[in-house]
Amino acid sequence: MITRIDKLQIELPMPDGPDANGAAAVQELLGGKFGEMSTLNNYMFQSFAFRQKRKLKPFYDLVASITAEEFGHVELVSNTINLMIYGTTFPGDPDVTPMQNAKDKRNSYHFIDTAQTAKPFDSMGAGWNGADYVFNSGNLVLDLLHNFFLECGARTHKMRVYEMTDNPVAREMIGYLLVRGGVHVMAYAKALEIATGVDITKMLPIPSLDNSHFETTRKFEAEGVHRKLYTFSAKDYKDVVKIWKGTHPEDGGKLEVIQGTPQGGPIPDLPPIPESFAPGISQEDFMEIAKRLQRSAGI
Amino acid sequence: MITRIDKLQIELPMPDGPDANGAAAVQELLGGKFGEMSTLNNYMFQSFAFRQKRKLKPFYDLVASITAEEFGHVELVSNTINLMIYGTTFPGDPDVTPMQNAKDKRNSYHFIDTAQTAKPFDSMGAGWNGADYVFNSGNLVLDLLHNFFLECGARTHKMRVYEMTDNPVAREMIGYLLVRGGVHVMAYAKALEIATGVDITKMLPIPSLDNSHFETTRKFEAEGVHRKLYTFSAKDYKDVVKIWKGTHPEDGGKLEVIQGTPQGGPIPDLPPIPESFAPGISQEDFMEIAKRLQRSAGI
Amino acid sequence: MITRIDKLQIELPMPDGPDANGAAAVQELLGGKFGEMSTLNNYMFQSFAFRQKRKLKPFYDLVASITAEEFGHVELVSNTINLMIYGTTFPGDPDVTPMQNAKDKRNSYHFIDTAQTAKPFDSMGAGWNGADYVFNSGNLVLDLLHNFFLECGARTHKMRVYEMTDNPVAREMIGYLLVRGGVHVMAYAKALEIATGVDITKMLPIPSLDNSHFETTRKFEAEGVHRKLYTFSAKDYKDVVKIWKGTHPEDGGKLEVIQGTPQGGPIPDLPPIPESFAPGISQEDFMEIAKRLQRSAGI
Amino acid sequence: MITRIDKLQIELPMPDGPDANGAAAVQELLGGKFGEMSTLNNYMFQSFAFRQKRKLKPFYDLVASITAEEFGHVELVSNTINLMIYGTTFPGDPDVTPMQNAKDKRNSYHFIDTAQTAKPFDSMGAGWNGADYVFNSGNLVLDLLHNFFLECGARTHKMRVYEMTDNPVAREMIGYLLVRGGVHVMAYAKALEIATGVDITKMLPIPSLDNSHFETTRKFEAEGVHRKLYTFSAKDYKDVVKIWKGTHPEDGGKLEVIQGTPQGGPIPDLPPIPESFAPGISQEDFMEIAKRLQRSAGI
Amino acid sequence: MITRIDKLQIELPMPDGPDANGAAAVQELLGGKFGEMSTLNNYMFQSFAFRQKRKLKPFYDLVASITAEEFGHVELVSNTINLMIYGTTFPGDPDVTPMQNAKDKRNSYHFIDTAQTAKPFDSMGAGWNGADYVFNSGNLVLDLLHNFFLECGARTHKMRVYEMTDNPVAREMIGYLLVRGGVHVMAYAKALEIATGVDITKMLPIPSLDNSHFETTRKFEAEGVHRKLYTFSAKDYKDVVKIWKGTHPEDGGKLEVIQGTPQGGPIPDLPPIPESFAPGISQEDFMEIAKRLQRSAGI
Amino acid sequence: MITRIDKLQIELPMPDGPDANGAAAVQELLGGKFGEMSTLNNYMFQSFAFRQKRKLKPFYDLVASITAEEFGHVELVSNTINLMIYGTTFPGDPDVTPMQNAKDKRNSYHFIDTAQTAKPFDSMGAGWNGADYVFNSGNLVLDLLHNFFLECGARTHKMRVYEMTDNPVAREMIGYLLVRGGVHVMAYAKALEIATGVDITKMLPIPSLDNSHFETTRKFEAEGVHRKLYTFSAKDYKDVVKIWKGTHPEDGGKLEVIQGTPQGGPIPDLPPIPESFAPGISQEDFMEIAKRLQRSAGI
Repeated sequence: MITRIDKLQIELPMPDGPDANGAAAVQELLGGKFGEMSTLNNYMFQSFAFRQKRKLKPFYDLVASITAEEFGHVELVSNTINLMIYGTTFPGDPDVTPMQNAKDKRNSYHFIDTAQTAKPFDSMGAGWNGADYVFNSGNLVLDLLHNFFLECGARTHKMRVYEMTDNPVAREMIGYLLVRGGVHVMAYAKALEIATGVDITKMLPIPSLDNSHFETTRKFEAEGVHRKLYTFSAKDYKDVVKIWKGTHPEDGGKLEVIQGTPQGGPIPDLPPIPESFAPGISQEDFMEIAKRLQRSAGI
Repeated sequence: MITRIDKLQIELPMPDGPDANGAAAVQELLGGKFGEMSTLNNYMFQSFAFRQKRKLKPFYDLVASITAEEFGHVELVSNTINLMIYGTTFPGDPDVTPMQNAKDKRNSYHFIDTAQTAKPFDSMGAGWNGADYVFNSGNLVLDLLHNFFLECGARTHKMRVYEMTDNPVAREMIGYLLVRGGVHVMAYAKALEIATGVDITKMLPIPSLDNSHFETTRKFEAEGVHRKLYTFSAKDYKDVVKIWKGTHPEDGGKLEVIQGTPQGGPIPDLPPIPESFAPGISQEDFMEIAKRLQRSAGI
Repeated sequence: MITRIDKLQIELPMPDGPDANGAAAVQELLGGKFGEMSTLNNYMFQSFAFRQKRKLKPFYDLVASITAEEFGHVELVSNTINLMIYGTTFPGDPDVTPMQNAKDKRNSYHFIDTAQTAKPFDSMGAGWNGADYVFNSGNLVLDLLHNFFLECGARTHKMRVYEMTDNPVAREMIGYLLVRGGVHVMAYAKALEIATGVDITKMLPIPSLDNSHFETTRKFEAEGVHRKLYTFSAKDYKDVVKIWKGTHPEDGGKLEVIQGTPQGGPIPDLPPIPESFAPGISQEDFMEIAKRLQRSAGI
Repeated sequence: MITRIDKLQIELPMPDGPDANGAAAVQELLGGKFGEMSTLNNYMFQSFAFRQKRKLKPFYDLVASITAEEFGHVELVSNTINLMIYGTTFPGDPDVTPMQNAKDKRNSYHFIDTAQTAKPFDSMGAGWNGADYVFNSGNLVLDLLHNFFLECGARTHKMRVYEMTDNPVAREMIGYLLVRGGVHVMAYAKALEIATGVDITKMLPIPSLDNSHFETTRKFEAEGVHRKLYTFSAKDYKDVVKIWKGTHPEDGGKLEVIQGTPQGGPIPDLPPIPESFAPGISQEDFMEIAKRLQRSAGI
Repeated sequence: MITRIDKLQIELPMPDGPDANGAAAVQELLGGKFGEMSTLNNYMFQSFAFRQKRKLKPFYDLVASITAEEFGHVELVSNTINLMIYGTTFPGDPDVTPMQNAKDKRNSYHFIDTAQTAKPFDSMGAGWNGADYVFNSGNLVLDLLHNFFLECGARTHKMRVYEMTDNPVAREMIGYLLVRGGVHVMAYAKALEIATGVDITKMLPIPSLDNSHFETTRKFEAEGVHRKLYTFSAKDYKDVVKIWKGTHPEDGGKLEVIQGTPQGGPIPDLPPIPESFAPGISQEDFMEIAKRLQRSAGI
Repeated sequence: MITRIDKLQIELPMPDGPDANGAAAVQELLGGKFGEMSTLNNYMFQSFAFRQKRKLKPFYDLVASITAEEFGHVELVSNTINLMIYGTTFPGDPDVTPMQNAKDKRNSYHFIDTAQTAKPFDSMGAGWNGADYVFNSGNLVLDLLHNFFLECGARTHKMRVYEMTDNPVAREMIGYLLVRGGVHVMAYAKALEIATGVDITKMLPIPSLDNSHFETTRKFEAEGVHRKLYTFSAKDYKDVVKIWKGTHPEDGGKLEVIQGTPQGGPIPDLPPIPESFAPGISQEDFMEIAKRLQRSAGI
C-alpha cells in the first residue's frame, strides 16, 4: 500500500515561455525505455515478485523503498512537461484558429489527445510498454545488475536532454534527478558488492562526466542530497541502512538514511486552457457545481 | 510524493495448488486495457494534469486519492498471480527437466522471463501500453465520464475472470476488488452528478448482476467496505468528503470517508524456486552476504 | 453486406494551398483511437456480435446503421487528407530533388510510403489497432455507454484539430462531422435512456462549447442536418425510429429518420504526382492500356 | 458512401458443438496480416487514394467494388467465429465457475474482453494494424501487384486453416471465400495484364492445389460463383466489365459481371450468454425497455 | 555461418554538412517495412526454412546468397545515416546547451537514445518488426512472388527518398542500392519464370522510371554492376548460375556470376561526439586503457 | 560485408518426434528480448555506430567479430525450431483435416503463417522489435555494460528453456550456446575490466549454476570450446587478442583466439510438407522446372 502526499519532491520554477518541443524531448525521461515510468515499474514489480523477502530483507527494502521515490520522479517529470507546454496556444473562438501554433510542434498528442500535458509515452510518442520495459528475472544478482545498468542508461538520457534545452524547469528537474539517480546507481552498486563481492562503484560515473558539470545539480549536492537515501516510508524498509552506509566516494561525506521523505515543494496549479476545453468549466457551470457541492453536502 | 507501507490492503489466502493458466487469465486484471495498471495510471496522470486544482479541489482530491488506492490494487493482483503459479514446476537438476510442466501452459513469459511472477501484460501477454490505455483529456466532465466507463469495464472483466477460476486466492482478491471498484464507480458517478446535474448512479450496477452474487464480496460488504472511501493520505485530499457523502443506494448505510488507509494484511513471503534461479542465492552465498552486510556495517 | 455509392456524403471544397502538417494533424481523426476508423469498426463489430438482435432490434438497428454512416466518414477524412497534402512537392527529374519540401514535414509516411495520401494511422504515424481500439463487450448497456463516451472523445479531438488549422477542406469536413457526431452522441444517449431510464442527454454537449461556435457547422445546422438520422439502407434498420424521435433539445425541431442516405457530393479526382510515380502511367503506357482494354473486350 | 443490407453473402450452417480453439485459428482470417480486415482496408484506402480515377476508371472501379465485397467477407468470418465459440461455457451463478472451460482455451480475449465473439485481431491475439497491414503506394502497377500477392497469401492462410478444423461453419465459410478469393486473384491478374502486358494468370493457382480439392468449394463452383464479379453497387463501378470478361481458364465458362450483390442469406441471431452478461438484459429490464420504447414513441 | 570483412560494399563520400532530417528520412530505408532490415531478414529466414534445399538448390542458393549481400546493404544505409547526422550538435559544457539544435529535429532517438547514429527503426521511429515484416510461407512460388514484390516496393521507397534529399552520401548509397536492387528484382523474376513459366521481367522496372534517371546510378551501371550477381561466399551457392544467366534486357550485356564479393571500400571512422559522451573515453582514460591492454597482454 | 558458408556452427541431432510446444518455447531464444536476434543486432548496430574505431580497435574488433558469430546462433536456433515442429501434422487431402493436431498448439503462426518453421518472434508470438531491443548508446563503457548484462539475461533464458524440454535437438543447441554465451559474457567482462579497471568476471556465472550442470555443455567444454574466441573473419578483427587472453578462471586452461570459424556441421535438409504446400512443387512441376533450368542455361 501507499499513502500519497500532495507535494512534489522539490519546488519547480516557472518556465520563461512556452517550449513545446522541449517538452516533447522531456517525454523520453517520462515514458521512454529509460524514463521514470520504467524505473518506477521495474522496482515496483521486482518488489512484488521478490522471493525470500525476509531472508534477504536489506535487498528487498532497497528495491521497495526506491520504488516509492520513483513515483515522485514520474510526478516531477510530468509536472515539468505540463509547465513547459503552457503558452503555446492562445484563448479564442475556434474560428480564429487559437491552436495554430501547435500544428508544427513535434508532439501532436500534447495538443489533440491531452490538454497540453504529459502522458506515458516517449519523445517520439511511442507508448511506455510493460512487457518490454520491465525486467524482473527473480534472480537477485541479475536484477541488481539490471538496475545498475538501467540507472546508468537513465543518467545518459537525462544528460543529453539537459544539453538540448536550457528551459529552467527542465534543468531544475533534471539537475535534481541526476543527483537522485546518482544515489540510486550507487545504492545498487553497493547492493551488488554485498551480493557478489565485486565493487563496481569504481566504474562510476557512467558516462564519466560527473554531476558537478551540470549547474542545477550543484545546489542540491551542496545540500548533501547526494548522500541521503530516503525510506519513503513511515516505518518500513529500515534495513536499507545495511546497504547505504559508509562514505561518499566523491566527497567523503557520510552517507545517511532518512526515514521518510524529503520536505518537498508545492504542486503547481495549472491555469485553464479554454481552447483545449480544460477543465472546461465555465463560471456559470462553476456556480451550479458550487451549489450541488453544498446541497449534496446537506444530505 | 508517496510513502509506502509494507502491507497489502487485505490478507490473501494460500491457493490449494498451482494454477498457472488461472494466473494467465488474472493477468488481464493487471496489465489489460481494463486492468489495475490502467486504473492506477489513468488517475495518476489525470491528477498530475488536473487544471485548476484549487478551484475544483473536491474533484482533484477524488482522482488523486483513488490513484493511491489503485497502487494497492496493482499490488494485490500481482501477489495473487505470484501465489497462483507456485508449484507448477519442481526443483531438480536441469537434466531432469524440472520445468517440463511449464511447456504447455498458456503464458510462457511466466516461466522464461520472470521467476513465475507477474509483469504488466495482459492475459495474452500483450504489454500494458501507456499511449493507448491512459485517457487524460483535461476536460473534467469527459475525464469523469471516462473513469465511470473504465470502472464499469473493469468490473465486467473481473466478473468474467471470477467465473473462470475457483482458485481461492483469485476469488478473494476479485471479491475485494469488486467491492472497491463498486465504491469507485459510485464515486465517479457522484462526481459526474455534481459536475453536470445528471444522476447516473441509477444506471448501476453495470453489468446488472450485483456484488452479492459473488461469495467473496459478501464478507467485505458485511464489514461495510462498500461504504468507505479512504483518502490514502495522512493529511491531504480531505475534500473528497464533499463528493462521497449521503447514503448507499443499496443498503441505505451512511457513506463515510476514512482519512488514511485500511488496516491491511501481510505481504506473502515467496519461497525460492531453485529451478528458476530465484533468488538464486545458495546457502554458501548467503553466508558470504551476511558477512559483507556486517562488515560493511562496520565502516 | 453493403453496396457502395461512388459519392462522398458532402462535397468538399478545394484547399487554397498545400498543408502537409495540417494533414498530419487530421490523421488523428482518421486512424487515432478516437478517429473514424474507430467509430466505424466499433459499431461494425458490435453489430456483428450483437446478441438477441431480434428481441432488441431497435438497438441493433441503431448500431448497425450508424456503422454504415461511419464508412462515409472514414472516406471524408481520407479525401480531406489527400486534398491537403497536394502541392507540397513539384514534378521534376529526381536529380532536382523534387520532393525536397517533404523532408521537414511531420509525417514522412505520406511521402515515402504513400503517394501523398491517407492511411489508417494517427497524427504521430501510429497504426490504427484493432485489439486496442475496438470495444465490444456484448453487454448492451456497457457498449452503449462506451459509444456515448467514444463520440464525446471524438468530438473533443475534432474540435481541437479545427482550432489547429484554418484550411478550408479540413474545416468543411470537421464542421460536417461535428454535426453528424452530435446526432450520434444524442442517439446513443437516447438509447441509453431507453435501456436504463437515465437521461444523459442533459450532459451534452461535451465539451460544453456547442456546435454553433464553429463556422462550418452553421450551414449544416441551418439545413437541419443535426435532426436527421439516416438508415443508410434501402430497406433495413427501420426500427431506429423507435429511438430517434421527439424533438431536438437545442432548437426544438422535430427529429426525423431518413430511409437511405444523404444526397452526397462528388468524389474529387486526384491529379497525378509524377514525382511520387503515382499513378505512374505514362501517356505511352496509357495508349497501350487503352488498346489492351479494347482488345481484351473483343474476346 | 455505402448502404448496408441486413444479410450475409451466404447462409451459414450451425456448428455441431463448441470449438473455441478452432475459432481462435479462424481469427487469423479476420485480423491477421492476410485476413479480411486487410483485404477490406487495402482496397478501401487504395480506392480513396486512387489518382486519375476518371482516366483509369476500369482499374478504379475494380478496386472500389471489391472493397465492398470484402466488407461482407469480414462479416462472414466474424459471424463464423461467433457461432463456433458458442457453447464453451454454461449459464450459472458465478460461484459455480460457469466459465471454467474457458480457462485453458487459446484465446482469452474471447472470454474476458468480448462476450465470446470476434474482434479484429489475429490467431495469437495481435491487433490488426493499419500502418503495417495496408499497402497503398499510389503506383498503379505496384498496387495491383501487391493485391495479386495479398490474395495469394490470403488463399494460403485459408487453405491451412481449413486443414486445421472440420467444423462445418468454418468449412462453409472458407469454401465460399476460396471461390471468391479465386475471383479476386484472377481479376487482379487480368488488371495487371492490361496494365503491363504480362499475363500472370498462368501462375495460378498459388499454392498449386486447386479449389476443387476442398469439398465446400465444389457446390459454389457448380453454381458458377467462380465466374461472377459483382459490382456491389446499384449503379456505379460498371467499368469492371472492361477487365472481367472472356472465359474462365479452368472450365471455359463465360465470365460475367453482376450489377449489385449476391442474393445472400440470413444473419444468425445469437442467443444470450448470461454468464458473459450479454446482452445482460433481464426479463424485468426488458419489460421496462418495452415501455420506454413505446412511451418515448408517444412524444 | 558467416565470416565478416571489415569493409563496406562501396566507398561512401563525406556529406557536405549535417542533415539530421535527411537522415531521419533515410531511416525508412533501414528499418521500414521495405527497408534493408526487411530484405536481409526475409531472405535469411526463408533460407533457414527452405524445404528440399538439395532438390531445389538453384533457388535455395539464390535466396541464401542474396541474404549475405543484404547484410552489406544494412551496413551501407547505417553508415550513411551516421555520416549525415554528424555536425548537428557542437561540443561544449552541458550548461551551454550544446545539443540545442537537436531539439527541433524530426528524430529525437538519434540524439537521446543513440550517439547520433542509426538503429533499426523507420522514418517515424517505429521499430523494425520481425513478426510483421518477414514473410516466409515456405511455398516456393509464393515466397518468390513476395520477394519480387518486396524489391519493387523497396525500389519505390529508395526513389522517393532520393528525391527528398540531395545529400551526397545519401545519393551515392541510394544510387548503388538502386542498381543492386535492380539485380535482385530481376533475379527473383527469373527464378519465378523458371518456377512457373511466366516471364514477369517484362513488367520491369516498377515504378517505370528506369535507373538511368538517377545520377548516382549511372557510374555503377557504366561499370557493369547491374549485370553481376555475387555469391558472397567463397565456395557455396554456385548454382545461382543456373538462374542468373543470359543477357541483360536493357543493354544486352552478358549477365555474370561472381564467386565472392565486390572489392568494397573503407568503413568510415566516426569522430567522437563529446556532447553525446561517445565513445566517452577521455585522454586520461585512454592512457589507463592502453596500460591495461598491455598489462593484461603480459598475463 | 560478410561472406556466407553453407554450414551450421555445429551438427544438430534429429529430434525423436514432433514437439511443437517445445518449439514455441525455443522461439524465445530466437525472437525474444534476450534471444539471438537481439545479440546479433545489438552488436551489429554497435559495430556500425562505433566511434573512434581505430583508436579503440580492440573493443571494436570484439563487438564486430561477435556479431558474426551471432548470425550463426540465429541460424542454429532457427534450424532447431524447424526440426522440432516437423511431424505435428500429416499429409493428406484437405478434407481429412491433415493439420488437425495443430489447432491446439501454442503457436498458430507456425502452422498458418509459415510452413512449420521459425520466424523472428518470441515464445508468445510477439515480433522481435528493433527500436526496443537494440541498445546502442555510443558510450563505450555503457555499451559494454549492457552487453555483459544482455549475455547474462540470455543465459538465464536458455537455462530455463533447457529445463522445459528434453528434446535432444533443443538440448544440443542450448548446450552449445551456453558454452558460447559463456565465452561472450567473459569477453565483455574482460573488455569492461580493461576499460574501467573493475574486474567483474568475479560475478560470474550469473545465474550462479555453472555450465557443467547441463549435460550437453560438457562435451563442448571437454573440447575446449569455452576457451576459444573465433574472429569469424579471414583477416580482420585480430585485435580481439588484446582482450581475449590469459587463462580461463574455471579450469585454468589457456584462452585462445582462432582466426576464422569453427569447423561446423551440415545444414539439415528439411523434407516437404505437402499439407503446408511447402515447397509446393509437384513432381510434374519439378520436371518442367528442370527443363527450364537447362533451357535457360542454354542462352
